[in-house]
Amino acid sequence: MSATPSPRIGIIGTGAIGGFYGLMLARAGFDVHFLLRSEYVAVAERGLRLNSAVHGALTLANVQAYCNAADMPPCDWLLVGAKSTSNAELAPLIAQAAAPDAKVVLLQNGLAVEEGLRPLLPDSLHLLGGLCYICVHRAGPGIIEHQSLGSVNLAYHSGPASDAEAQLAIAEAGAALFKEAGLDSTAMPNLAQARWQKLVWNVPYNGLSVVLNAGTTALMGHGETRALILAIMKEVIQGAVACGHAIPEVFADKLLANTDRMPDYLPSMYHDFVEKRPLELRYIYAEPLAAAERAGIELPRIRALAQQLAFIDTHNLG
Amino acid sequence: MSATPSPRIGIIGTGAIGGFYGLMLARAGFDVHFLLRSEYVAVAERGLRLNSAVHGALTLANVQAYCNAADMPPCDWLLVGAKSTSNAELAPLIAQAAAPDAKVVLLQNGLAVEEGLRPLLPDSLHLLGGLCYICVHRAGPGIIEHQSLGSVNLAYHSGPASDAEAQLAIAEAGAALFKEAGLDSTAMPNLAQARWQKLVWNVPYNGLSVVLNAGTTALMGHGETRALILAIMKEVIQGAVACGHAIPEVFADKLLANTDRMPDYLPSMYHDFVEKRPLELRYIYAEPLAAAERAGIELPRIRALAQQLAFIDTHNLG
Repeated sequence: MSATPSPRIGIIGTGAIGGFYGLMLARAGFDVHFLLRSEYVAVAERGLRLNSAVHGALTLANVQAYCNAADMPPCDWLLVGAKSTSNAELAPLIAQAAAPDAKVVLLQNGLAVEEGLRPLLPDSLHLLGGLCYICVHRAGPGIIEHQSLGSVNLAYHSGPASDAEAQLAIAEAGAALFKEAGLDSTAMPNLAQARWQKLVWNVPYNGLSVVLNAGTTALMGHGETRALILAIMKEVIQGAVACGHAIPEVFADKLLANTDRMPDYLPSMYHDFVEKRPLELRYIYAEPLAAAERAGIELPRIRALAQQLAFIDTHNLG
Repeated sequence: MSATPSPRIGIIGTGAIGGFYGLMLARAGFDVHFLLRSEYVAVAERGLRLNSAVHGALTLANVQAYCNAADMPPCDWLLVGAKSTSNAELAPLIAQAAAPDAKVVLLQNGLAVEEGLRPLLPDSLHLLGGLCYICVHRAGPGIIEHQSLGSVNLAYHSGPASDAEAQLAIAEAGAALFKEAGLDSTAMPNLAQARWQKLVWNVPYNGLSVVLNAGTTALMGHGETRALILAIMKEVIQGAVACGHAIPEVFADKLLANTDRMPDYLPSMYHDFVEKRPLELRYIYAEPLAAAERAGIELPRIRALAQQLAFIDTHNLG
């Protein structure tokens, strides 16, 4: 394994996800550098604050904060927590902050986010996907609310590591960082499979929270929307299976039961909608629908939800 | 034909639909009696007012208005313009206002409204369905805004007329009333077919206007929702065909083009939602879905929309 004993970690986009994982890694002793935009002044002055139902109230007082990627030291690992809607503009910043053989991990939801970013990155960089199972949102500048969960699954996408063994070793080195910060993390052999699996949760809850202006507890507490969630989950699984990724149908029932045990949660797309940010429709809806269509199947409930969301997004930004 | 030269007409539920047709029939010289609830005082004092983009501003000053069905004279024709959600409580009032062999016409949307009401009516009454093609809404107590259209198609459902010829003659007698009031009206031989045909418009626009908080112009002006409307229309047609009612697929394209020519319109379900009335989900969504299911097909986009609407309805009334 090529990871140094204490690699330098860069956080690109210090919102809820980037802030949570960066803070947890910094508190575990890693050398973490945070790239920020609108929240730079607040975080440089007052640090990062995490109100966690799991870990208690934690503060990272002296944040190594940057508003220019060019000022960051070369980082061995770059965790991208920004919205997937801004990946194209982030690519040059990622390249600036990267050590020559850095590992770039997209802590983002959806399918094919790596395919979107890869052509914009230097070939020398490793690119990985990271699937975060976590209920977290930004409550204010530099303030993160963490309700539950926190695990990350990593899988290699592309870059200099050419064989499966070397790729899995890099994903395992990434997982080891999170584990040292006290978080569950698993290296996965197949990124597309992992992304489809995560979509089984994201596709129903993200979209329905926006369309119906509701959190998970209300959506799960009504028999009709509960049935709709399950039907949408099964369509995601159909899409995955058509694309060659075996996910058993019973996985949907398991996710429903897991969500029942979660506190009431408003998914990230709900917050994007309320704060009038562009919705992550491309990677959470359009790419999975396109992949399923190429594999020869139509997913009508997901298509209809995506069409509703496209309308809402246009009028929300207009 | 058994219709008297000037039959007595009763309007049960004088909202936008009942008010419009009742006013037009009264102005054409018919003896029209209006049953009202919350708007009784306003209409008894100030009459009915129609602001019509087609017919101009019309007033019916001396309205024969009633707040008790028992006070009405026996009516030969009863036009029911109330919401289908209140049919069960209206049944005894209809029976009270009816002449012995009266014709009851349900000017309501959806499938199987007659099946819902029939068991609650005396066997001696004729029951017909009326499909109103009209853009109209209630603007205030006794005030009706009419944007466009106005035709009514009538079809016999059940009652003393046992053979098809007699049934069509009664539907034709009803159509003649509307024609005398200057409105297009056609007697149809097959009520279920006519109801399915009307659903091709109602199912997409009513539901989407509520879920997306938008009128027809906005829904038609966005490529994604326009495609969704068309897809939902085609599902309604699939349902109709599965139930034995041939509607050509091109009918959906025709309705899209017709809607493009309409002024911006907020369907009745939108007004019900905003005014916190129960949504007409049973007859516009649940009954067609159940009929299609009995015929062996699932309509996933309509099912998903109905599930969303059920959630919205619960929270709107709660």
